[in-house]
Amino acid sequence: MSLLKSLLAISIISASFPSFSAIPADTIIVDGTILTMDAKKQVIDHGTVVIKGNKIIAVGGPELAQNYQAPNVLNVNGDIVMPGLINTHTHASMTVFRSLADDVPDRLHRYIFPLENKMVSREMVRVGANLANIEMIKGGVTTYVDMYYFEDEVAKTVDKIGLRAVLGESVIQFPVADAKNADEGIDYAVNFINQYKDHPRITPAFAPHAPYTNTTEHLQKIAKLSQELNVPVMIHLAETDREQEEIAKRTGGKSPVQYMADIGALNNKVIAAHAIMVDEKDMDLLKQYDVGVAHNISANTKSAKGVAPVTTMLEKGIRVGLGTDGPMSSNTLTTLNELNLVGKIHKLANKDRAAMPPVTVVEMATIGSARVLHMEDKLGSLEAGKLADIIVIDTKSPNMVPMYSPYAALVYGANGANVRHTIVDGKVLMQDRKILTADENTIIKEAQDFASKVRETVVASGEVVK
Amino acid sequence: MSLLKSLLAISIISASFPSFSAIPADTIIVDGTILTMDAKKQVIDHGTVVIKGNKIIAVGGPELAQNYQAPNVLNVNGDIVMPGLINTHTHASMTVFRSLADDVPDRLHRYIFPLENKMVSREMVRVGANLANIEMIKGGVTTYVDMYYFEDEVAKTVDKIGLRAVLGESVIQFPVADAKNADEGIDYAVNFINQYKDHPRITPAFAPHAPYTNTTEHLQKIAKLSQELNVPVMIHLAETDREQEEIAKRTGGKSPVQYMADIGALNNKVIAAHAIMVDEKDMDLLKQYDVGVAHNISANTKSAKGVAPVTTMLEKGIRVGLGTDGPMSSNTLTTLNELNLVGKIHKLANKDRAAMPPVTVVEMATIGSARVLHMEDKLGSLEAGKLADIIVIDTKSPNMVPMYSPYAALVYGANGANVRHTIVDGKVLMQDRKILTADENTIIKEAQDFASKVRETVVASGEVVK
Repeated sequence: MSLLKSLLAISIISASFPSFSAIPADTIIVDGTILTMDAKKQVIDHGTVVIKGNKIIAVGGPELAQNYQAPNVLNVNGDIVMPGLINTHTHASMTVFRSLADDVPDRLHRYIFPLENKMVSREMVRVGANLANIEMIKGGVTTYVDMYYFEDEVAKTVDKIGLRAVLGESVIQFPVADAKNADEGIDYAVNFINQYKDHPRITPAFAPHAPYTNTTEHLQKIAKLSQELNVPVMIHLAETDREQEEIAKRTGGKSPVQYMADIGALNNKVIAAHAIMVDEKDMDLLKQYDVGVAHNISANTKSAKGVAPVTTMLEKGIRVGLGTDGPMSSNTLTTLNELNLVGKIHKLANKDRAAMPPVTVVEMATIGSARVLHMEDKLGSLEAGKLADIIVIDTKSPNMVPMYSPYAALVYGANGANVRHTIVDGKVLMQDRKILTADENTIIKEAQDFASKVRETVVASGEVVK
Repeated sequence: MSLLKSLLAISIISASFPSFSAIPADTIIVDGTILTMDAKKQVIDHGTVVIKGNKIIAVGGPELAQNYQAPNVLNVNGDIVMPGLINTHTHASMTVFRSLADDVPDRLHRYIFPLENKMVSREMVRVGANLANIEMIKGGVTTYVDMYYFEDEVAKTVDKIGLRAVLGESVIQFPVADAKNADEGIDYAVNFINQYKDHPRITPAFAPHAPYTNTTEHLQKIAKLSQELNVPVMIHLAETDREQEEIAKRTGGKSPVQYMADIGALNNKVIAAHAIMVDEKDMDLLKQYDVGVAHNISANTKSAKGVAPVTTMLEKGIRVGLGTDGPMSSNTLTTLNELNLVGKIHKLANKDRAAMPPVTVVEMATIGSARVLHMEDKLGSLEAGKLADIIVIDTKSPNMVPMYSPYAALVYGANGANVRHTIVDGKVLMQDRKILTADENTIIKEAQDFASKVRETVVASGEVVK
């Protein structure tokens, strides 16, 4: 955000306006407990947010509302109004596999890759992404970062339902459903990127699976192409023991982060998921190359892989946002449910109840996640000039009462079902828990039908895990 | 449960019935995915549960329904039907303080005790308990274990709304709102116990706060009285560093558990909350004296106190159930939200993704918690002859779809808002998220009004924490 825009936003917040003829707008939210998540972390009681087109044009106190006129006025009666949550890492389409074989050791290699080999298709990607989309809208996610196959199918669902997303087409060295090898995967990704590079809500991207499942040459090729095409690169990094071992073998003892830096594949286009197994030197490299880190606490604890040293990363000024990881990993896509885990597990890991306070957790899920995408000038806070991605959280459910601190209520008390309204790009996608841009029942029915196929194909026979 | 009853329950599940004139019942639940949580962990698809009066009289497959006739037939269309959750440790009335000063170091002594000194009253206890009751009903809790002051006020709210509860009147050595000292506290408790000892849903109890906030003599007096009156004793045990230090000082180096054993205060009436700081010898004592342990993972991580060694406790055959702790500690009373933390944090603590599988977590929250209360013959599973405390969980919300494993869906996917119906003692307390036995809006309004008083009294002045 430019200095001029910042000054403008602050003046709108603090000034009281004389009466004059009303300014036209599209939607006015009134009487909100507004968590702006701006640089000063301003909280406005009985506040107003004004939307025109796909942008926020004003944020301020109760007096602001009278200056605007709009066909849609949403009185939220003191409910929390905040930036939409940004889910910085998931594999949306895997919803159709959710709750399969959750506790298999070495699960990725023994279970998930063989399962995907059997079951991934255009149809599966579409059905799973649709389910993920409604779950995220209902859970307050307005932007998500996806990594999977047939990503153009995901893009169609995102385009249609109205969400915002960064969609990364997977590149991996063994045969997968949409590519025989990494070169074909890169070609698929380039085509996809060219198809979607001008979409107003979709940012296409490369998604090399991980350092140890791609060759050095392919990682370097992707790094080069991402600069030429000016798109993000998302990758699983410093996540597993196996990765550490294989990269150490490949490099004579380097860490995955060091290896990526040394081959020229770390830069400010990279969104690194996990970053659990990092030392001080690795973290300094992440900072030096301005890499964004997607922190997936829920998946990382479920897989028993460990706790990424996020408090240290934040001290170092590394861009850290929150992700859910895929629905086989965490298992929900509802970032709002993860806030509780982030706050509590980092207190435990730091042996300090004051560590990771609620405001820091909420920051991580909003403007912090926007920073990970290098989109903090457009997303992640409620300020004039930013895109109108906004959620409203019910504060009258018993679990949210009373609310001395809205940040604590959100982090320790809220669950995904407390999200009342979800607005993306100025458009209301969900109002009072009802999704307006898709038929929820049809989507759920399709997912259940696909699950029946999965049961017939791999569950009944037990063929995936012997 | 007797052997005869066990055999009867199994025969009802497995037998197919000839047609005969229908047996009268009060409520029949049909087409459920029934998690019986019985000894065999039977899951019945399209199953039936039959309720008459306050008891379950039959559990079985779809064919069972035709044998019964009832005015209330609840077709749940495949939703999960399971025993109501048992919250083994909370301080319900503290809901009115929820989200106050969450991250204050040494919070109990620096903040909570002074706050309570200012604000606890009969009125506060009633208003807070009412709010807690509706939150728990909405979150699928059918029985809770409470520890607070003016426990007779809590009892009145529980009696009225229809929940089941074990209610412990606090005893502590310094002056509190309802007693000048521990002797007065014991007198208050004895009166309360005599008043409620024959209530069908309320079990009155003693609640000495902790070993270090009571004298040896008072702990021994309570142990003796609890035997005479045949009531439970709940106590915070092995929870804090300060407790370890003060008991070691008092005893020349003993652990709190060892101290309690040595003074004759450990027995099968005791429900010990937390048990974080226990070694092998302490755990062996808990087993030897048949003590129940309330595990409060959410509060223990939020306070950074550590992870109780529950996997070891379960191996040793110790009775372990799940608690939320009070709403200033965790901060919700929705046991269903905690399942996720239990599963994930014990995997992390054990560095093993196969540790604490979903079925074990669900067991802990149901029949395991019933064992903690020594009520496993009456509560905690769906079997003929048991009390009809039953919840129904929505399986069509996006976060619950698909459902290859109902246990995994519950533990990793569900949130409190997925609870559709809550039945206690055969009576429907909530149907389709609407509470039938209380006016939710009035209760919330009263809690918000009380919170305003708290704001005026202690928050605005900042007088509680200097």
